[in-house]
Amino acid sequence: FSDTFKILIATDIHLGYLEKDAIRGNDTFVTFDEIMKQAVQNEVDFVLLGGDLFHDNKPSRKTMHCCMEVMRKYCMGDRPIVFEILSDQAVNFSHSKFPWVNYLDSNLNISIPVFSVHGNHDDPTGADGLCAIDLLSCAGLINHFGRSRSVEKLEISPVLLKKGNTRIALYGIGSIPDERLYRMFINNQVTMLRPREDEDGWFNLFVIHQNRSKHGATNYIPEQFLDDFLDLVVWGHEHECKIAPVRNEQQLFYVTQPGSSVITSLSPGEAVKKHIGLLRVKGKKMNLQKIPLQTVRQFFIQDVTLSEHPDLFSPEQPNVMLKVMAFCQEKVEEMLEEAERQRLGNSLTPEKPLIRLRVDYSGGFEAFNTMRFSQKFVDQVANPKEILHFIRHREAKDNIKAILSRPTSEVLQLRVEDLVKEYFQKAEKNVQLSLLTEQGMGKAVQEFVDKEEKDAIEELIKYQLEKTQRFLRERRVEATEEKIDEEVKGRAFKEDLVRNLN
Amino acid sequence: FSDTFKILIATDIHLGYLEKDAIRGNDTFVTFDEIMKQAVQNEVDFVLLGGDLFHDNKPSRKTMHCCMEVMRKYCMGDRPIVFEILSDQAVNFSHSKFPWVNYLDSNLNISIPVFSVHGNHDDPTGADGLCAIDLLSCAGLINHFGRSRSVEKLEISPVLLKKGNTRIALYGIGSIPDERLYRMFINNQVTMLRPREDEDGWFNLFVIHQNRSKHGATNYIPEQFLDDFLDLVVWGHEHECKIAPVRNEQQLFYVTQPGSSVITSLSPGEAVKKHIGLLRVKGKKMNLQKIPLQTVRQFFIQDVTLSEHPDLFSPEQPNVMLKVMAFCQEKVEEMLEEAERQRLGNSLTPEKPLIRLRVDYSGGFEAFNTMRFSQKFVDQVANPKEILHFIRHREAKDNIKAILSRPTSEVLQLRVEDLVKEYFQKAEKNVQLSLLTEQGMGKAVQEFVDKEEKDAIEELIKYQLEKTQRFLRERRVEATEEKIDEEVKGRAFKEDLVRNLN
Repeated sequence: FSDTFKILIATDIHLGYLEKDAIRGNDTFVTFDEIMKQAVQNEVDFVLLGGDLFHDNKPSRKTMHCCMEVMRKYCMGDRPIVFEILSDQAVNFSHSKFPWVNYLDSNLNISIPVFSVHGNHDDPTGADGLCAIDLLSCAGLINHFGRSRSVEKLEISPVLLKKGNTRIALYGIGSIPDERLYRMFINNQVTMLRPREDEDGWFNLFVIHQNRSKHGATNYIPEQFLDDFLDLVVWGHEHECKIAPVRNEQQLFYVTQPGSSVITSLSPGEAVKKHIGLLRVKGKKMNLQKIPLQTVRQFFIQDVTLSEHPDLFSPEQPNVMLKVMAFCQEKVEEMLEEAERQRLGNSLTPEKPLIRLRVDYSGGFEAFNTMRFSQKFVDQVANPKEILHFIRHREAKDNIKAILSRPTSEVLQLRVEDLVKEYFQKAEKNVQLSLLTEQGMGKAVQEFVDKEEKDAIEELIKYQLEKTQRFLRERRVEATEEKIDEEVKGRAFKEDLVRNLN
Repeated sequence: FSDTFKILIATDIHLGYLEKDAIRGNDTFVTFDEIMKQAVQNEVDFVLLGGDLFHDNKPSRKTMHCCMEVMRKYCMGDRPIVFEILSDQAVNFSHSKFPWVNYLDSNLNISIPVFSVHGNHDDPTGADGLCAIDLLSCAGLINHFGRSRSVEKLEISPVLLKKGNTRIALYGIGSIPDERLYRMFINNQVTMLRPREDEDGWFNLFVIHQNRSKHGATNYIPEQFLDDFLDLVVWGHEHECKIAPVRNEQQLFYVTQPGSSVITSLSPGEAVKKHIGLLRVKGKKMNLQKIPLQTVRQFFIQDVTLSEHPDLFSPEQPNVMLKVMAFCQEKVEEMLEEAERQRLGNSLTPEKPLIRLRVDYSGGFEAFNTMRFSQKFVDQVANPKEILHFIRHREAKDNIKAILSRPTSEVLQLRVEDLVKEYFQKAEKNVQLSLLTEQGMGKAVQEFVDKEEKDAIEELIKYQLEKTQRFLRERRVEATEEKIDEEVKGRAFKEDLVRNLN
């Protein structure tokens, strides 16, 4: 057999995103089909996914059905699999009811194993700690790795793979709230175990699904946190395609950020052409070939600043609004023409592109009602109601840019957390509530809203209560009510402090 | 090979029923495990399920995971399957993305194929017409048959099975609202296709999931509706175990009603000992062996009428309530003792039984608060809060009996339909609403409530609108508003009339 591993790399497929949308409803399913078809056509050894295979924590029946259909269609068959697993599978897949890699199950005829960590969209929730990927894993269609039982400490046992003379140590961390993982790294609670034999003979591949770009002091994972023995980091979660490996000159590893295979926000990052990667690994050498995705809906975004066109219109003119409208229409039509040109000869690309025109109307201009404007493009654009976006100031624009470049769930989370923060500030003196930290409460409310996890808040309260009781027992606090109050107050504020400092 | 088919028969497993209950939460999973284990131990050729494998139309992730785990554990393996399929599988399983029986899929190593129709709890819903069983089918774990595309007409192509010299024609009808199926039978719209060759050489096995006992004139399926060429009917939906085949003397077929494997209502029917069946078929001969289920929670129910014990208490006595309470307590304790006796030596039976005491307190007695009473049994009974049930009259008791003997979803449906009926009676003159029939609206509301089918009402309205438009087009009604109103009114009322007459 050859010594070269061929691995298809993709991430953030977000199956089920906008599934009810009449135009875009099937986009994620079509592109997932394309990705898995590429895996077959390129005869890869396995597929490696970086999380957020599903958009919703509890995917709809249709989404789950589509996903299983595609996987059964492309991942099963008689093509032999020629790499071995050298690590203890019961450790690698300890959370699974079938704790071994699917292609070694004699009841399943797997031709392409898929390995995946979970993302923040499809992470484990609820008392049973299951996630959507676990259903696929139970059905024998995926190998879910990179999952930890502890929330305070990570000890990552790599999946050890061998093909000919090439050996890969595959590490993964499924999505964890950024602050928590940040703190674990800071406190030296993240350990990546190394193979005992010939430690330096392995190609060390690591999959992570976290913020890569800095959102607040501790709300991302700096690359320098990662172990420098790594060779390649596959970074999920970030939607912009930056798949060409970039060398980190301090750590001396490479980072590839494949980006999402579907556009989930109308921000510049998502307008970058989408790719998946064909990674070849031979010994310690690697090569990553970019494969452009054909079925992804086109997305064009353009910014205009009205005050920069004094030759065309000024706020004092009569009929200025009509002129601005015509100007915007022209810009949109230009983008539509460009979209059509690029689509020529590619029958797989959906007909209607996504179009966004961001209009800075500061300097005395007025925004106009976009209803009639939308009507003009209803047959040509996939997002007619959201084409125009008015912003007033350069400053505002930059803010929006920053927010829009984040995945949408985080924008929501921000808001929920803000609400909770505000609430806690007002309720500061309430001792009962100080048992719950802001962050925990924010997360519980988020899960309650996002994931229809009806028990999230109750579970949080139970957890915090038990933790506090344990804490008090350990300190042997005499159980007078006053003393408990004191301890609790001191502790909760201290925790807040620690969090805010990190 | 032998000529004898061995088939495990079970129905109404209701996976996920009360899954959040601290005591009873795992009952359905444990019993499903027992059932599938029996299939393995008895080396059956296949398992035949009569619907309602799932309790909720959209089972929780945990329920789906447990189900797949059990099926993968027991239904996959190297034991060879020695019967053939003679029918066109693309017809039998035409709704599936993988339209063939799972054990003939070369990528799946199936040792025990499971065949199932869907029940009223796990029937297809939504625009994509998928049901929970279809997820299992897509994963290759079940063979979902007996599904029709039309709602006005049924043409049932049997799955034709052959083992040695024995041939079985397996017919099925997944759950359909009783009234609708009743009307289809009345209108001769139900056709059971026969094999062309040697028509009389087949054992004709039919699975149905409908009301068997009469609830209203058209709200059940009379046995005489069924074709008399059938040999055995497996009747799902009814929860009382009447598994011993009963001969229908008019039709000359047998009916077996396996009953549910979990107690979902505290009614006398559910207190009958639960069984599954081991059906042997050789040529045209059959034998059905009852297998008692060991893991089913015990259920004892008893009726007492206070006025029948004048020696013990009378309404005028002081402290009569304490005496009645003591009397009830004694009865419950008797049942608990009996439960323990019967449980002796059976380690698989859950420790805490279900207990119900129905107390007829007519004749001047007063009901008492059951809170304190419940407290006494909180450690011994699985349903401490529901032990006592006070009823006032014999008549009332009989009514309740009638209602309780129905599956719970129907009790709810009754109420919802009543509400809708009332609403329509009040809104009779509203022409817009008369487009929607009561029944359709009732069903849509029901789905909205029951199945979280957010689009149910919208879809109904769309469907009815299109139907009405087609109807008007066919009649070539000139499209003046008045005329449409007239036609619509006439038609809607006529439909109601037809429905009420059937």
